[in-house]
Amino acid sequence: MSDSTILTIGDVENAVSRLSGVLHKTPLKRSETFSKISGTDIYLKYENQQKTGSFKIRGAYNKLCQIKETGDVKNVLAASAGNHAQGVAYAAAALGLSATIVMPKSTPIAKIKATEGYGAEVVLSGDCYDSACAYAKKLAAKRGAEFIHPFDDASIIAGQGTLGFEILRDMPNVDVVFVPAGGGGLLAGVSFCLKSINPRIKIIGVQSVGADAICRSFAEKKLVGTERATTIADGIAVSMPGELTTSLINTYTDACVTVTDAEISAAILNLLERCKQLVEPAGATSLAAALKMSEELKGKRAVCLLSGGNIDMGFVHKLIDLGLAARGRKLRFKTVLPDVPGSLERVAKIIAESFANVVNVQYDRTSADLDPRDVFLHIICEVSDREHGKKVCENLETAGYKVIVAE
Amino acid sequence: MSDSTILTIGDVENAVSRLSGVLHKTPLKRSETFSKISGTDIYLKYENQQKTGSFKIRGAYNKLCQIKETGDVKNVLAASAGNHAQGVAYAAAALGLSATIVMPKSTPIAKIKATEGYGAEVVLSGDCYDSACAYAKKLAAKRGAEFIHPFDDASIIAGQGTLGFEILRDMPNVDVVFVPAGGGGLLAGVSFCLKSINPRIKIIGVQSVGADAICRSFAEKKLVGTERATTIADGIAVSMPGELTTSLINTYTDACVTVTDAEISAAILNLLERCKQLVEPAGATSLAAALKMSEELKGKRAVCLLSGGNIDMGFVHKLIDLGLAARGRKLRFKTVLPDVPGSLERVAKIIAESFANVVNVQYDRTSADLDPRDVFLHIICEVSDREHGKKVCENLETAGYKVIVAE
Repeated sequence: MSDSTILTIGDVENAVSRLSGVLHKTPLKRSETFSKISGTDIYLKYENQQKTGSFKIRGAYNKLCQIKETGDVKNVLAASAGNHAQGVAYAAAALGLSATIVMPKSTPIAKIKATEGYGAEVVLSGDCYDSACAYAKKLAAKRGAEFIHPFDDASIIAGQGTLGFEILRDMPNVDVVFVPAGGGGLLAGVSFCLKSINPRIKIIGVQSVGADAICRSFAEKKLVGTERATTIADGIAVSMPGELTTSLINTYTDACVTVTDAEISAAILNLLERCKQLVEPAGATSLAAALKMSEELKGKRAVCLLSGGNIDMGFVHKLIDLGLAARGRKLRFKTVLPDVPGSLERVAKIIAESFANVVNVQYDRTSADLDPRDVFLHIICEVSDREHGKKVCENLETAGYKVIVAE
Repeated sequence: MSDSTILTIGDVENAVSRLSGVLHKTPLKRSETFSKISGTDIYLKYENQQKTGSFKIRGAYNKLCQIKETGDVKNVLAASAGNHAQGVAYAAAALGLSATIVMPKSTPIAKIKATEGYGAEVVLSGDCYDSACAYAKKLAAKRGAEFIHPFDDASIIAGQGTLGFEILRDMPNVDVVFVPAGGGGLLAGVSFCLKSINPRIKIIGVQSVGADAICRSFAEKKLVGTERATTIADGIAVSMPGELTTSLINTYTDACVTVTDAEISAAILNLLERCKQLVEPAGATSLAAALKMSEELKGKRAVCLLSGGNIDMGFVHKLIDLGLAARGRKLRFKTVLPDVPGSLERVAKIIAESFANVVNVQYDRTSADLDPRDVFLHIICEVSDREHGKKVCENLETAGYKVIVAE
């Protein structure tokens, strides 16, 4: 199958028309902070502000429009616990189709409710995505509903490709575009669209180190899966990319790179702190990659596609926790105290006078190397930064305490 | 002093010209989520995306432009540990003036560095804002520098008033505007600007319950201070508003209302989760008030001014923690176990099979009412919501455990 039978630029243009006035044209803005940090021109495409919180609605809406145009099918069915579910549910409601979403049994109730909130029926089946998906295909056949694949479908790819058009409209002189990739629908669509219009533009696919099937497929110039897909970026944790997507990516994408979970976490925190924007892990990979490659980007205008913003608050909580620790904002240490009244007060006074805030205290009387008249005190403090933490320790040591800092 | 000698609409128009092309024109967008929740039309003005992360740069830039236009003074001086510091520092650097910022000694190092990062000299003095401010005025006199008041200054007020212009440009048919108020510079400027152009528009000032001096001054139609100003919204924790600002507010503002810290926290979390935007506590008061007053807003188009986005990550962390607890996402309970090998494993198995994630476990063997062969186990679990938490408890009770949930 040649690429021209998979997709034409006319397909993407038609998708642009279908989406116009229905979905958001999301902002594309220069980031002064990240341009300064990287020494290059970094622009951010805020697709986290799209309806349903991610780009997935573009492909889903385009696909469902075409289903509606042909007029036969009234029911659509998808398997997903994430952005595809919400995209299909929203698009179906907007177009007056009925949608069923099959989700794994372990799906958090909040996600189930969000999808039901868009008017879809949710069916729970299987312990993981793959088994939910297998059941969804069976159920679709049984019900005469059309199964909506999350990425390996020309209409879905054309819909995601509309992001390429939007970037060009706002910034015709873009040099490089960074695109997150899991199943490859977004990367395939954007690469095809941009290269068809302007072959000078470089498109770089970004994956997580722990889920790099598209990078491997790109290197080997054929479809390759991975055994596992382990990353905090759940939106791109895909072990087997699509056939159509891989074929398009291997033809139109310029390079595929990986970033680590730590780099993704740092990008999320920086986006929150500096740009005041919440971006999900998959969406932050593009910025993480651009910052990593800043040397090669000198003098170029780079767009990072922030593909979505759906991230559980509990997970944001953990990311901030780790981020603060990585920045030296949490000081963890132990010290030995005489096990008598007043001991805690003396230590607490020195910490207070050092302007540090105690968040946890634990006593340990069971260490073998402890004098029975003493006690180990484990303390966690909030401090302004590493320097401040050192100052707190110095003040304790000056007062005669031996401080053992935990890493 | 009549209002026309304090400020003219021409002053605001001049400020608009000065700021044009230098500061961001921030987005004004309809929020589908909050419009749906409130049953009215809610628009959000994202001033959290302004340069330096808050509206304060508007007044500071306008003021410093005028200082530069007169040409005598080359040095400016301000007292602030917050957004005013960054606004003055940024504006001074942009205009080639030298800036000194006096901050209280307890100011976190991160804030000091941020202000220094804009090129300002930082001087630490005093234990609180008031004493830092007293020192700043002395230092300004000594150095021949101009002291830049954070709010009670006609040029500052005119600069903040430019937000009124921007709202009207994007939305000439706005009915109600909610404006956070602390010292009153923003509320005075926006009220004066909007009422001067279109008296039909209602302007509502919003304060925190614990720092409501402007509400009191508005009710008593004269300047009134409060003894304390205690709120999580540090940006509007002001016990004594300005004379100019109070005079303008009492003339041009339609109503002043208060919101609680809990309402502010909920608004911050909702903005993060639904709009993918980080807004500081002061900035979120406007949305909190609009949601509270949704009955009175029916059929009206309301703009909530999200005045800034500068919020410490450690504080965001705590807000999310409390927010998750308030939503029933943290299940805290204790139960009694026989103090023998295998006890923990049996409980842990039931929790695991209920899809809940244990985040903390503590043993208590010192309660007086405990059988010496038993032990209290305190457990904290992450669950999807309150319903899920109940299910976990039911599963434990079915297995014979007595569960005592902590509130």
